[in-house]
Amino acid sequence: MLIVKKYGGSSVATPERVRNVASQIIEDVEKGYQIVVVLSAQGKTTDELVARAYEMNPKPSRRELDMLLSTGEQQSVALMAMTLQAMGYQAVSLNAFQVPMHTNKTYGSARLEAIGTDRLQAELDCGNIVLVTGFQGVNRYEDITTLGRGGSDTTAVALAAALQADRCQIYTDVEGVYTADPRYVKDARKLEEIGYDEMLELASTGAKVLHNRCVEMAKKYNVQIEVLSSMVKAPGTLVKEDSLVERMMVSGVAADKNVARISVIGIPDLPGKAFALFNLLSQQGINVDIILQSIGREDRKDISFTVAEENAEEAYEIVKKHQQALGAEEVTCTKDVAKVSLVGAGMISNPGVATQMFEALYSAQVNIRMISTSEIKISVLVDKDQVEDAVRAVHHQFRLYKKESGR
Amino acid sequence: MLIVKKYGGSSVATPERVRNVASQIIEDVEKGYQIVVVLSAQGKTTDELVARAYEMNPKPSRRELDMLLSTGEQQSVALMAMTLQAMGYQAVSLNAFQVPMHTNKTYGSARLEAIGTDRLQAELDCGNIVLVTGFQGVNRYEDITTLGRGGSDTTAVALAAALQADRCQIYTDVEGVYTADPRYVKDARKLEEIGYDEMLELASTGAKVLHNRCVEMAKKYNVQIEVLSSMVKAPGTLVKEDSLVERMMVSGVAADKNVARISVIGIPDLPGKAFALFNLLSQQGINVDIILQSIGREDRKDISFTVAEENAEEAYEIVKKHQQALGAEEVTCTKDVAKVSLVGAGMISNPGVATQMFEALYSAQVNIRMISTSEIKISVLVDKDQVEDAVRAVHHQFRLYKKESGR
Repeated sequence: MLIVKKYGGSSVATPERVRNVASQIIEDVEKGYQIVVVLSAQGKTTDELVARAYEMNPKPSRRELDMLLSTGEQQSVALMAMTLQAMGYQAVSLNAFQVPMHTNKTYGSARLEAIGTDRLQAELDCGNIVLVTGFQGVNRYEDITTLGRGGSDTTAVALAAALQADRCQIYTDVEGVYTADPRYVKDARKLEEIGYDEMLELASTGAKVLHNRCVEMAKKYNVQIEVLSSMVKAPGTLVKEDSLVERMMVSGVAADKNVARISVIGIPDLPGKAFALFNLLSQQGINVDIILQSIGREDRKDISFTVAEENAEEAYEIVKKHQQALGAEEVTCTKDVAKVSLVGAGMISNPGVATQMFEALYSAQVNIRMISTSEIKISVLVDKDQVEDAVRAVHHQFRLYKKESGR
Repeated sequence: MLIVKKYGGSSVATPERVRNVASQIIEDVEKGYQIVVVLSAQGKTTDELVARAYEMNPKPSRRELDMLLSTGEQQSVALMAMTLQAMGYQAVSLNAFQVPMHTNKTYGSARLEAIGTDRLQAELDCGNIVLVTGFQGVNRYEDITTLGRGGSDTTAVALAAALQADRCQIYTDVEGVYTADPRYVKDARKLEEIGYDEMLELASTGAKVLHNRCVEMAKKYNVQIEVLSSMVKAPGTLVKEDSLVERMMVSGVAADKNVARISVIGIPDLPGKAFALFNLLSQQGINVDIILQSIGREDRKDISFTVAEENAEEAYEIVKKHQQALGAEEVTCTKDVAKVSLVGAGMISNPGVATQMFEALYSAQVNIRMISTSEIKISVLVDKDQVEDAVRAVHHQFRLYKKESGR
């Protein structure tokens, strides 16, 4: 049995926590398992390194930033190897060069392309616990790259796929995936398992447990992920291919406050206008989430869309600059909005789900600003100060606090 | 013109100092020179990393310690590259993997074996200032090694040799090589140049300006080293092959307080006894410096030797344990001694040098405990509390404060 484990920065932030994680690893070693551990940089190390970089250069090159940041994980794995050795166990740390973890050439948000397994396998065969730096790779120039947000999770899933591990355990500061954010909804329930697609929708709608990239990779290579707590000893949530047992109608409610809405009002109702608008934004690398086009009044239409809050100003400036060319009457931008999403593979076959959701929001006096639906997700835009009411209302409506039947 | 520069940890300890070093580098870039810069870890970074290692494991494995320590230099080079870029210059940082700097497999005190120059040359050809991590290498297992004491100086000299650089500049916290330690001797003079052998003798006798390994490598590959200050703008000292101009009789006086003397008294005057004694010590990896054997009285002899102070207890214990087997009457150990050495290639042809040195010490009422001579060095052991008097007396005797003729 081969297990890949991943611990985040807060799990290894202090010497005590490093020793705690080491003990957890040893428990599984004592069961006879082979263990590969992916670690992030300790605590706030990455933030501190970024601050040191910006002190020297307000616009540091991504290549050099990656060279700098990658040292954080290297320190983590070396210190963990020493800790395990101090406890009497064989361990060896490997960085991205040594594995090797090949990525494409994009600094700052590289994508893993190929992982060498010879050395990993050799170290495991020698009886070593293998500690691998998360979040980083090496590109074709032999330069160090980092994988961007969710990078260490992605490293763990990629290693699990390459090594054909029996399980990939992602340790976090929560106990698993919940039907809603437990900070908002007191009776939110931890899910025993969830399908990849539902997890993807939850992740992209603001449930920060796992990053999309890591779930996508897990789905692609069919790696079973277990999300569990590094602090509390309890079963977590399995993220896996949809099981054969009866599907839950909905798996959870997620909220995302990192949203801004931009409205372009009174565009001439001519072909090519929507393309012109969104082409401007994609050229600047701005991702657009929900898009809504109003039914035309006379020969005009309105297009509203949402972007991440940090892109709001830039997106607004771009559209404003091209207002005349687009022929729009007005451009507005607001950050006082949030997105609430209901996710569940069972929605496809349950046409009443959207209606039930809207009913719950209406009962809670929550005004819906925009609506977007996919096969397994319904997202609504609401006022930011109503987001918690909205999540609670929807969570209650679908009885997510209770176990579904057939599970 | 290609110059390799090396800056130590104190030269890059703060953001201000990093910017200061960057400005110095840029001055030479503006002259049209190609520049490779070797950097140590910033300030006390290495010490802090060692402390963190020992907190997790009182006996950390050297492999993992090297993995950890190497991150310090990597941070230095990345931050310097960003700083140079902020000032408008092209720069790129490279670690030991990327150069590559191949070493033997000995962790903690690896020896450089081969340096790849393709990437270095390519980066220089692109117009980059190239920043290379000092103190580290990669061994045949693709593991990170560190070079031990004086490691970054050695990296710089090795790179200068591999790239056939025109000069190798080692920036330190002193302005060059002096005729004596300026803290002891106020009128000590900075040397314009010194030969490799003399520098080696000075280094091994306690002048900490350059480490022996780096001078040995410079001699082997005939790399001209310039030792100069990173703080004060002034010509330094050239370390090079002996020049053709008339040789100085003596180049300097060095003091080493890190000395202990062990005396083994009353050993039977039989063959093999000295071998037996020093074999015991070398088996434990203890280096012996000066050895003195007294003329036998009757059928007995005394053997005294010096070791580094930190090895004194261990050496004493070893000899004491075998006192009976050696047939010795008594074993004593004292740390109240220091070594004063006079170094100069001219000594060979000036037989009166030793006499003059002893005369100076006698005049200063300094008692000589042991004497050892080589072709270009005379070392004496004196009481520790007399070491500064001894250095001043010898320095004065040989008029080192004045320029020698012919230079």
